[in-house]
Amino acid sequence: NLSCATPQAWLTAALQHIPLLLSDHACCEKKAASMAMSMMKHFYDDMAVLSQLSKIAREELVHYEQVLRLHRQMQIPFQPKPAARYAKSLSAAMVAHGPQRLLDQLIVCAIIEARSCERFALLAPILPQPLSAYYHRLYAAEKRHAMVYVAFASQRFDPALVQTRLAYFLQLEGALIVQPEAVFRFHSGPPMTV
Amino acid sequence: NLSCATPQAWLTAALQHIPLLLSDHACCEKKAASMAMSMMKHFYDDMAVLSQLSKIAREELVHYEQVLRLHRQMQIPFQPKPAARYAKSLSAAMVAHGPQRLLDQLIVCAIIEARSCERFALLAPILPQPLSAYYHRLYAAEKRHAMVYVAFASQRFDPALVQTRLAYFLQLEGALIVQPEAVFRFHSGPPMTV
Repeated sequence: NLSCATPQAWLTAALQHIPLLLSDHACCEKKAASMAMSMMKHFYDDMAVLSQLSKIAREELVHYEQVLRLHRQMQIPFQPKPAARYAKSLSAAMVAHGPQRLLDQLIVCAIIEARSCERFALLAPILPQPLSAYYHRLYAAEKRHAMVYVAFASQRFDPALVQTRLAYFLQLEGALIVQPEAVFRFHSGPPMTV
Repeated sequence: NLSCATPQAWLTAALQHIPLLLSDHACCEKKAASMAMSMMKHFYDDMAVLSQLSKIAREELVHYEQVLRLHRQMQIPFQPKPAARYAKSLSAAMVAHGPQRLLDQLIVCAIIEARSCERFALLAPILPQPLSAYYHRLYAAEKRHAMVYVAFASQRFDPALVQTRLAYFLQLEGALIVQPEAVFRFHSGPPMTV
């Protein structure tokens, strides 16, 4: 479970920045596909996990294509911006080498999917169509991905260590979600008040 | 058109190294997906191209999963090995920066797909089932990918420059294909004679 809910101020900002939200969402889907693929090298001894990671990557790419299509449908230009601090800050807190790096990557991926899931659920009722219906549908997919990543971590690592790292990253992630941020992105904090 | 045919000695080696061929083939499919995704950043102004690159990446991942399934079906362990010199040598000959890097990437991707295509066609009649039927099917997909990459290059770059770089990389690729190589891989040269 995430350590805090998305602040109301972020949701208000999202409604004011729908084009930015959508373009950044597309980038997030592509990055999620890359992350799934980048973890494959750790699972060369397990073809079942490799296939699952490949399927997750393909699902994220389907979402990427769907979000691009929504740009066209809503006549929004695709304008990707530099990423928010979110993923960078979480990556920076990962162990740099050794087997625990994989554990950290799996946990960070699971948390990012869980946060995306939470935001889709909050956004779906307040966004205009066709985004509302689409975000409602994405909710289920991202929830499933989060659980798969935790399952992979639990298969490979000591449950106590998984819990420790999960608690550590959940706390760090919560801080990034509540701390005001200068830019608006899919995973940004609430806007800074001037 | 490729500058030379795969040497008979490589095909003979392939029949002697089917497990190695299959594991290296899986790695090639994954790398092909990564390459398609890595080129997306150059096409942020063209959602149609972005969607096509994403679809190519997904197709390569489907092939990756299919090749993993063939390992299981044929009771071959998945044992990826370090890549042959092939892609590294082609990458090393690319322009390092600037817009022409994209052109070189597109051309190298097209040539790799064309060579894969040529090898699938040569392997299909001599490999045992179910590989024979599978490689026969892959032939069409890789041929289509090669043409898409050339089409992207032709849309963006001066036709004369496309032809010059294509001729340059075709000649370099041909040399890699005929020059004996110490390791056997999907894209290796003929085996060194002892």
